[in-house]
This record gives sequence, C-alpha cells and structure tokens, in this order.
Amino acid sequence: MTVSFSDQPEAAVRRSEHKRDDPDLGILSSRTLFSLQRELFSAIAEEGHPALRPRHGAVLAYLDEEGSRATDLAAQSGQHKQVIGSLVDELVELGYVERRPDPADRRAKLIVPTAKGLDEMAKSDAAMARIEARHAAAVGEEAYAEFKRVFRLVARRQSAAEPQ
Amino acid sequence: MTVSFSDQPEAAVRRSEHKRDDPDLGILSSRTLFSLQRELFSAIAEEGHPALRPRHGAVLAYLDEEGSRATDLAAQSGQHKQVIGSLVDELVELGYVERRPDPADRRAKLIVPTAKGLDEMAKSDAAMARIEARHAAAVGEEAYAEFKRVFRLVARRQSAAEPQ
Repeated sequence: MTVSFSDQPEAAVRRSEHKRDDPDLGILSSRTLFSLQRELFSAIAEEGHPALRPRHGAVLAYLDEEGSRATDLAAQSGQHKQVIGSLVDELVELGYVERRPDPADRRAKLIVPTAKGLDEMAKSDAAMARIEARHAAAVGEEAYAEFKRVFRLVARRQSAAEPQ
Repeated sequence: MTVSFSDQPEAAVRRSEHKRDDPDLGILSSRTLFSLQRELFSAIAEEGHPALRPRHGAVLAYLDEEGSRATDLAAQSGQHKQVIGSLVDELVELGYVERRPDPADRRAKLIVPTAKGLDEMAKSDAAMARIEARHAAAVGEEAYAEFKRVFRLVARRQSAAEPQ
C-alpha cells in the first residue's frame, strides 16, 4: 500500500485562507458594507457632517424629502422600530430631523429632514453614486450592471427567506 | 411659452421609492448581510447553539480550527481589535473558545475553538453553503458564479479604497 498525498487529511488549506480566497456571501456583504460606510461617512464628515455615524444611515439613507414614517424606515432598513426611534432621537438632537404630525393622519408622526438633513442626504447620495461609478469603471459597466441585477434578486430572495 | 412636463421638478419618484427600485451597493449589502445573519443564527440556534448572536460571527466566521490571533481576526472581519477582544471574552464565557499561549510565540495568545466551537463552525459553514446553493439555484449557477466573481473584486477594491 502506498501513501499518496490524497490520503492526507484535507487540512492543507486553513479555514481562514479558504474564506479569504473564496469568501461567502456573508463575508462579502459584511466587508463591502462596513468599508463603504467608513468611506461614505468619512466623505460626508469632510463635507460638513462630522457628527454622523454609520448607524444613522438606517434613517438618513431611506428618508424622504417630505418625511417618512418610522414603520417605513424600519421596514426599509431592516432595523427594529425601537432602534429607528432611538436613532431619530439622536438625529433630532443633532439637528438633522424633526418629528411632525403626519398631515394624512394627525395621530401619527412623520420624521421630516431639516435643511441640514436635506443637505446631508444630497451629499450622501452623491458620494455613494461616485463610489459606485468608480467600481463600475473598474470592473466594466456591463459587468457591474449585471452584478447589481443579480444582487437585487439575491437581496430580495434573502429577505423573503428570513425567519419571522 | 409653453410649460411642458419636463419643466416640472424631478420629485415625481420619491427618494425611498427610487432606493427600493434601484438600491445602491450599501443598501443591497446591508439588506443581504442582516437578513443572512438572522437566517444563519436562527438555523444554528436550532442546531444546538441558541446563545450565539450575529456579532459573534466576527470571530467564529474566520476562526481557524488550530486557533487564530486576535490581530488576524480583526483584519479579516474589519472590526477593531478591542471589539474582537470583547467578543472573545463573551465566547470564552459561553464555552466556544479558549485563549492559549501561541506555540510560535509564547508571549502571544491564540484564540482556539473548543469542541463546542468546532461544532458551531462546521454547522455554520454548512448552513451558509446551503443558503448560497439556494441562491445559485434560483438565479442560475453561472449567473451566481459571475455575481460572486464581481462581488469579490468590488469588495477587495472597496476595502482598499477605505480611508485609514
């Protein structure tokens, strides 16, 4: 009986090396999200909004110019309504949003951006567009568009698969 | 002078609607990551690991069977070394890892999975593989492989672009 290399245990590649060479969807999403957040919030800090932190993105990324309900922000960001509530408290304190009665339902509240909030939203959307344009130029416009198409499908299916 | 529709402000589509129909890279990454984490940690909770929370993934997702250094876990997860340190404290308390002297450098410590940790790592890797196989089957194997290829490039470029 000869002992060949294939009889060796499969420990030749470490788990961490395997995950570096062939990262799973969670690793790729996590690396991209946290790195994007750092770049984005560093850019908008330099553009006049140094007090904001990535967590505030759960509100500011989805907020409508005319105001949004907390339940809609919770649904869009995937955060609990209590989390959104305390982020809104922080953003009121920082002067980015105000709570106003919803004209469509006086018992409900709308979270409405202030002028400072609108400025941040425009700058943040522009910074994200610049970052994505950079990625599209690097990987090719067509390849990037196809990547986004499949990512939309995967993100939608993943959210739908989630245990409630 | 005639007033045409093109003179109207471009507010026809709300910001939140635009972001729902054409979500940016940050929204897609965030939605996918948090939804994946909830599915994954719900699955491994049912498989005998109910005390773990998504934050523990920053350690357990990258940990080598033979142990890892905290600095490597910090680099791979993109978290600060202090964050990794307190997650390791929690995982020691929960019985998933131990701190041992590094045989390669007696002054350094290795974070080494216990039997319970190894069990969780295997189950978590298997659950993630099942989730990705489901996405690949849904969007097509080839399209999914191409999506992952471009995602690896984007994630690598995004991390490299980050302000230090």
